[in-house]
Amino acid sequence: MSSIFGRVFRVSTFGESHCSGVGAIVDGCIPGMSLLESDIQPQLDRRRPGQSLISTDRDEQDQVTIQSGTENGKTLGTPISLFVPNQDHRPGDYSEMADIPRPSHADYTYQKKYGIRASSGGGRSSARETIGRVCAGAIAEKFLKETAGIEIVAWVSSVADIESQEPNLQVITRNDVDKTIIRCPDYQAAAAMEALIKKTKDAKDSLGGVVTCICRNIPPGLGEPVFFKLEAMLAQAMLSIPATKGFEIGSGFAGARMKGSHHNDLFILKKNRIGTKTNFSGGVQGGISNGEPIHIRVAFKPPATIGMEQQTIDFSGKEALLTAKGRHDPCVVARAVPIVESMAALVLADCEMLQRSRG
Amino acid sequence: MSSIFGRVFRVSTFGESHCSGVGAIVDGCIPGMSLLESDIQPQLDRRRPGQSLISTDRDEQDQVTIQSGTENGKTLGTPISLFVPNQDHRPGDYSEMADIPRPSHADYTYQKKYGIRASSGGGRSSARETIGRVCAGAIAEKFLKETAGIEIVAWVSSVADIESQEPNLQVITRNDVDKTIIRCPDYQAAAAMEALIKKTKDAKDSLGGVVTCICRNIPPGLGEPVFFKLEAMLAQAMLSIPATKGFEIGSGFAGARMKGSHHNDLFILKKNRIGTKTNFSGGVQGGISNGEPIHIRVAFKPPATIGMEQQTIDFSGKEALLTAKGRHDPCVVARAVPIVESMAALVLADCEMLQRSRG
Amino acid sequence: MSSIFGRVFRVSTFGESHCSGVGAIVDGCIPGMSLLESDIQPQLDRRRPGQSLISTDRDEQDQVTIQSGTENGKTLGTPISLFVPNQDHRPGDYSEMADIPRPSHADYTYQKKYGIRASSGGGRSSARETIGRVCAGAIAEKFLKETAGIEIVAWVSSVADIESQEPNLQVITRNDVDKTIIRCPDYQAAAAMEALIKKTKDAKDSLGGVVTCICRNIPPGLGEPVFFKLEAMLAQAMLSIPATKGFEIGSGFAGARMKGSHHNDLFILKKNRIGTKTNFSGGVQGGISNGEPIHIRVAFKPPATIGMEQQTIDFSGKEALLTAKGRHDPCVVARAVPIVESMAALVLADCEMLQRSRG
Amino acid sequence: MSSIFGRVFRVSTFGESHCSGVGAIVDGCIPGMSLLESDIQPQLDRRRPGQSLISTDRDEQDQVTIQSGTENGKTLGTPISLFVPNQDHRPGDYSEMADIPRPSHADYTYQKKYGIRASSGGGRSSARETIGRVCAGAIAEKFLKETAGIEIVAWVSSVADIESQEPNLQVITRNDVDKTIIRCPDYQAAAAMEALIKKTKDAKDSLGGVVTCICRNIPPGLGEPVFFKLEAMLAQAMLSIPATKGFEIGSGFAGARMKGSHHNDLFILKKNRIGTKTNFSGGVQGGISNGEPIHIRVAFKPPATIGMEQQTIDFSGKEALLTAKGRHDPCVVARAVPIVESMAALVLADCEMLQRSRG
Repeated sequence: MSSIFGRVFRVSTFGESHCSGVGAIVDGCIPGMSLLESDIQPQLDRRRPGQSLISTDRDEQDQVTIQSGTENGKTLGTPISLFVPNQDHRPGDYSEMADIPRPSHADYTYQKKYGIRASSGGGRSSARETIGRVCAGAIAEKFLKETAGIEIVAWVSSVADIESQEPNLQVITRNDVDKTIIRCPDYQAAAAMEALIKKTKDAKDSLGGVVTCICRNIPPGLGEPVFFKLEAMLAQAMLSIPATKGFEIGSGFAGARMKGSHHNDLFILKKNRIGTKTNFSGGVQGGISNGEPIHIRVAFKPPATIGMEQQTIDFSGKEALLTAKGRHDPCVVARAVPIVESMAALVLADCEMLQRSRG
Repeated sequence: MSSIFGRVFRVSTFGESHCSGVGAIVDGCIPGMSLLESDIQPQLDRRRPGQSLISTDRDEQDQVTIQSGTENGKTLGTPISLFVPNQDHRPGDYSEMADIPRPSHADYTYQKKYGIRASSGGGRSSARETIGRVCAGAIAEKFLKETAGIEIVAWVSSVADIESQEPNLQVITRNDVDKTIIRCPDYQAAAAMEALIKKTKDAKDSLGGVVTCICRNIPPGLGEPVFFKLEAMLAQAMLSIPATKGFEIGSGFAGARMKGSHHNDLFILKKNRIGTKTNFSGGVQGGISNGEPIHIRVAFKPPATIGMEQQTIDFSGKEALLTAKGRHDPCVVARAVPIVESMAALVLADCEMLQRSRG
Repeated sequence: MSSIFGRVFRVSTFGESHCSGVGAIVDGCIPGMSLLESDIQPQLDRRRPGQSLISTDRDEQDQVTIQSGTENGKTLGTPISLFVPNQDHRPGDYSEMADIPRPSHADYTYQKKYGIRASSGGGRSSARETIGRVCAGAIAEKFLKETAGIEIVAWVSSVADIESQEPNLQVITRNDVDKTIIRCPDYQAAAAMEALIKKTKDAKDSLGGVVTCICRNIPPGLGEPVFFKLEAMLAQAMLSIPATKGFEIGSGFAGARMKGSHHNDLFILKKNRIGTKTNFSGGVQGGISNGEPIHIRVAFKPPATIGMEQQTIDFSGKEALLTAKGRHDPCVVARAVPIVESMAALVLADCEMLQRSRG
Repeated sequence: MSSIFGRVFRVSTFGESHCSGVGAIVDGCIPGMSLLESDIQPQLDRRRPGQSLISTDRDEQDQVTIQSGTENGKTLGTPISLFVPNQDHRPGDYSEMADIPRPSHADYTYQKKYGIRASSGGGRSSARETIGRVCAGAIAEKFLKETAGIEIVAWVSSVADIESQEPNLQVITRNDVDKTIIRCPDYQAAAAMEALIKKTKDAKDSLGGVVTCICRNIPPGLGEPVFFKLEAMLAQAMLSIPATKGFEIGSGFAGARMKGSHHNDLFILKKNRIGTKTNFSGGVQGGISNGEPIHIRVAFKPPATIGMEQQTIDFSGKEALLTAKGRHDPCVVARAVPIVESMAALVLADCEMLQRSRG
């Protein structure tokens, strides 16, 4: 049951790296919305491996097919099944990991949980699992954009110690973001990030980083009190992405250092609506959107699979040296950008539909 | 539906500050476990207001009654209803806020979401809502301790800029934590925190801080892949607590600055089991517990309700000065300690029962 | 988790016969609806024991208190907690059943499931559990009536072999139904039913019967395809009522004997809308309401607890004679009428809100 | 969200008649169970159209592919995706129904609910939707058989007015059932049923019938009190099958005519366990299995799509004559047999896993 997300706008994902394909079912999308594969493919292309020198060499075209739920390019209100075949799979790359669990990867925990695990590619902990989310997220995003004008843009805000300058949150677009392969709109920082990633890749090591995401034109009233606060849903969504270690909304951990008189977002009149002067709240107060942009940050650890030799033990407890083969990203944040956007879209679409149920 | 949490071990909370009481139903606790009010009351006492000079003056005894689900001090496996009456409620304190929404509080967003809101005390965004969670959490914790030996201890690790030294995570107890009223086991830091809070209270301002939580003796295998990863559930749980702005597991945002060769937790033999040398993973790999302690941090913003005059606008858009009455904490972290522990317990109890379903 | 029903309009019930009280939390009711205890009490009065000579002698006033979720008589959109204290409880009546499970009651199965059970009154299988449903159902019904004009009326259509004539489904009201204590609007049949029940009560035996329910002014479009078809939800709802053995919608089992050319409900124009000439569908086609009245029937078995001596065995397997004490209904159908109405209302309220989420 | 069923053992189905295929995801199956397509195909073959002269002429091979969740023929504990391509689809057959909703079919209600509908084949109300259920049910059944020895057998017990004699419930097998194409183990009745169906098919009309199902070797303790009583889950499951109008467990509607002294199932010692002398309860007491066979009956109406001319109206309200083309079953009960078994298996697998969570 762990692969199903959402309450009204629901997605159910499936698939492992080693099998014929991966995908998702979206159950709950509104009827009558235009939807073609070409609405989904662009985000999938942004997620796919092999895009550039700084990502994994695994080369997958990742072409999505809509298998149900639409006719003549319109949604029917029924489950939308989405399928992406696996192509460039090399099981041989994983033979060494059969006996030696990769440090900080899921080999050991899957084996302990299930008593069995996929022999290659990490099973459901594989990055390929996120393909279903990106497909579903693209549909959620279309719904949000067409019915409420909501815009979602994420970017890489840091890699290792290299921090970028915050862009203008009101106007930044995906075009701006995609101008560099690292997807950082501070182009000077981007160049430094890319250089560091290449250097680290050559050293067979890996790097972490932070993805920042902004959601604009959010109507006030989304999110539910108590356990389904908007920030709680977003936190679950983001921490469900592989390799994430932290989540912040608005002021985040820096807010814990501030005084209330500074942190409080004073209300002011903005054209047509009540807004706030500052946005330390990150667009959410009491678990409910207040109409200001939602502003979140997600921390990604360095990928666990590295080419460098590691001194560890095997499943039987014997000392072992592991030199991982397989193709893996030296730093996942650039490809994580559309995944973060997708998860934000899934949360917002669910909240929007739930709020309508009161209408 | 937003007040229901968990899949197998489920809690449903209710109640507002202004009404006769608050509480919860726990649906799914195992049968045959001994359970009395005295198993729940201690955590409730740690949460209650009016404990010390550094918390709110609102004085509530918060005595819990078990209304169903047990007989002769044993759980029956049926829903356990828990009720705590409200006593020291002063609606007059909130009259000013009828027209002027408190900055960074939930007055504005509840009004926009529902078109109506509780006239006093913040409705479901009131800190009193967390009573139901603490009652339920105490039951979850008893289940975890008795059937799996799991221990959960949280403490205040920072207030504003005052950071404490990390205690010995293997041995720290709630007794150690409760030796200071701020619940910080670094007693030098604790003294500074308490002094700062008193000073800030006098200045009618408020402070944020961070709560750290450790869960020990976790069996490997808890947590579900994909959307219900253990860290994702914990993130939802923690960000559902009022006033939270951030969540970290293991290395957290610091992990985003590290290299893989440093961050990877190499496997080593510990007595009787495979463990890891370091614990940057925070006890979770691939969304599933690995047997090492779960280690999380939660950021709390400074409380929004402050006595200091604030220049804001009222619901009609007119400029207004707000000087909040009501009794409120200058800093919530000390009282948040048992709430963080409770939410961790609710997540773990649910995961433990779900894992048993495969047995 | 088994005591929570609904997806958007959700109810969570609690309480056993032996404890301080029973009740429910309604999570998901729309905000701004007027709601007082007096909106709920009438249905509770129709359900309560001790109403007449043909029901149990257990005399409970069953006064409901709204503990949260409203202010000044208006719903806040937050969880509505409802509590009804237990009063006339006589645990001594159940001492004999400690060792001998009542045939066809839940004593044996609860003991096998949980390894423990409430020592008296049947625990969660007690008829008192339905109090929470009736409270919640009254709120659901108010929502349905005020926002969509939906009317729900149930009545006793048979007791044992005594069948009543079907009333005019377009106009029958609860007033018509309540004119006899057996709640059968065919007054000649009602007299026969009441006489038979009194005779059976004297013989320390019990009787079964059927409750029919009609829901009028249903908008087309309620119910979801596949697993949450409107009739599937109604079937779950009705079979969750204690002592039920069967469910029919529209033609029911009689429909299985018909030809398609007879069973098909031909479409015709009714004023303002497309309707059907006949209603063998019972108001639902393809799992979705078509605008015709929903028409269902629910079979209730004779109550298991009878005063007559029964030759059975005890928990240890030894032969035993059981002569049940305790106070019990000789026939539950009259009191089941408001329970059936309540469950129908809970299903419809949930479907109505879910359908709005697409709006 | 309506295409997802179950709480721990969960199935999510998708697909319409007009699109590339249909299928399901099973999320929650235990790991380490052997599973091949050949474990699923037999039930699919029993469900498929074109099996005999008494079913539809639509000829589909319905070959299932397992797309994920297994490796080397073993389940991994991760989502199992199942896909069955559509082949013999003739959209032209449905052109007439574009303007005229079929009486008692889902054309009208889907249009009212969604404002759009699949142009052919009934969309999600198509019988092809049940393919996903049968695939998932076969997996559930394997789990039940291998871990608890549970056996599930259904058969046709009546067609129109032709009632069959009840077989020996202790020993009847699917082999016995499949000896006639109508799947009725009373071979004399079967011959009469088949003759009647052929005659009715020639007359371009259709027939209803009843499917009876027995589940043996059920451990006591399955099913949850209150809303998720075992019979309530079964009722939802069965009424979610297209064309169903009624559900009975144990004595069913006949039980409503009986006295308690007759209906009560007296406890007796059976070898190794406490059992009951009679089984009017149908294997369930207080919503929980008691160890006796579960015994249910499901009423199917005559199919709505008939070749005979029908006098109805079109979507615009104008009078219209409808002569349905398309290929449709004159009576669905023979093909419904494996669907009823599958839905029973899905309910029981979910209950079994949920009960283990308490272990």
